[in-house]
Amino acid sequence: MLRLYDNHLSGNGYKPRLLLAHLGQAYERVEVDILKGETRTPEFLSRNRNGRIPVLELEDGTCLAESNAILFYLAEGSRFLPSDPLARAISLQWMFFEQYSHEPFIAVARHWIQHVEMTSAQRALLPEKREGGNAALTVMEGHLRDGNWFGGDAMTIADVALYAYTHVANEGGFEIERYPAVRDWLARVQEEPGHVPMEPASEGVIAPTKS
Amino acid sequence: MLRLYDNHLSGNGYKPRLLLAHLGQAYERVEVDILKGETRTPEFLSRNRNGRIPVLELEDGTCLAESNAILFYLAEGSRFLPSDPLARAISLQWMFFEQYSHEPFIAVARHWIQHVEMTSAQRALLPEKREGGNAALTVMEGHLRDGNWFGGDAMTIADVALYAYTHVANEGGFEIERYPAVRDWLARVQEEPGHVPMEPASEGVIAPTKS
Repeated sequence: MLRLYDNHLSGNGYKPRLLLAHLGQAYERVEVDILKGETRTPEFLSRNRNGRIPVLELEDGTCLAESNAILFYLAEGSRFLPSDPLARAISLQWMFFEQYSHEPFIAVARHWIQHVEMTSAQRALLPEKREGGNAALTVMEGHLRDGNWFGGDAMTIADVALYAYTHVANEGGFEIERYPAVRDWLARVQEEPGHVPMEPASEGVIAPTKS
Repeated sequence: MLRLYDNHLSGNGYKPRLLLAHLGQAYERVEVDILKGETRTPEFLSRNRNGRIPVLELEDGTCLAESNAILFYLAEGSRFLPSDPLARAISLQWMFFEQYSHEPFIAVARHWIQHVEMTSAQRALLPEKREGGNAALTVMEGHLRDGNWFGGDAMTIADVALYAYTHVANEGGFEIERYPAVRDWLARVQEEPGHVPMEPASEGVIAPTKS
């Protein structure tokens, strides 16, 4: 059975949880406490040298890191990953956008505000995080004025990747009401059959029903 | 003919340039001056709302952004992108690593040191950039002690993506001599038939010879 090393607060962990729910794929979920340093133990580093969750462990023990690479692997052959090469590349474009221009601002601001005692250096960087996050939301808003989804005519892994931290952007101090097309897209993702919320995520075997 | 909107100082732009050289694929190269704001004009934003190079424009006018998504698209069907789904996902894992855990430290430190007048805020962040960049190089060093390449048994787009800024990491103040396996891998990439250096990159039609 697939095993997912995960943290219940992580949007990056939520990405594979949400896709696995849509795929109706059973897996074992292992909670890893980031704040207690559990991603820095020799055992965890043997699964991902980069010391980050999520990590997907396959039945043969092969470990795959990076949330968006995990999405790409899991979605192969499903309706969440187009087969056309250009459509695939466009989904990947949005997933790289998410990791470079969106997550480092929106997810990091949320993490600082919600989960840690902010240092003065972090506090000083918050305006830059706000600016970068709002720039990313503006890019998304522009795209969604022309189309309902990011990777094509239906929901793909690009939407899963972008949904994870956008739907909790308010926890990072972002006003999603300023982006009505983004707000409507969040509702579309939530209305897809098989949708599961970010929390609570239980430990042990998760066996979703295929939508 | 393919058209690449590019900047000659950019490692992200160098990625498709290097892959196109290996593929023997002709293209038109358009230099975009980032420092003069040419990625923020309405015309450029119509090609990439996110206002960044590189952008690959296909013959039908479709534009694809994000260097690593461009690599994935161009490499389809070639020896630089494995066909096995797990091998593809592992290549993508390293490419997402590159954009999240490598480029924001190594490329940004290089950019600040080499190409702009550093602000005091940037100068204060340099130690953090050093630390993050060295962490990324340490992850690469660990991987390369066990294998010659990142995406499999031969050079793939994962190597192209990681090579772009690693081979100029010294320009960001990183000591590559501290990472002998990385240094040897850099030499392997350079010795691949068809390799081209980062500069000089001329404008107009580039017609490489297939290696």
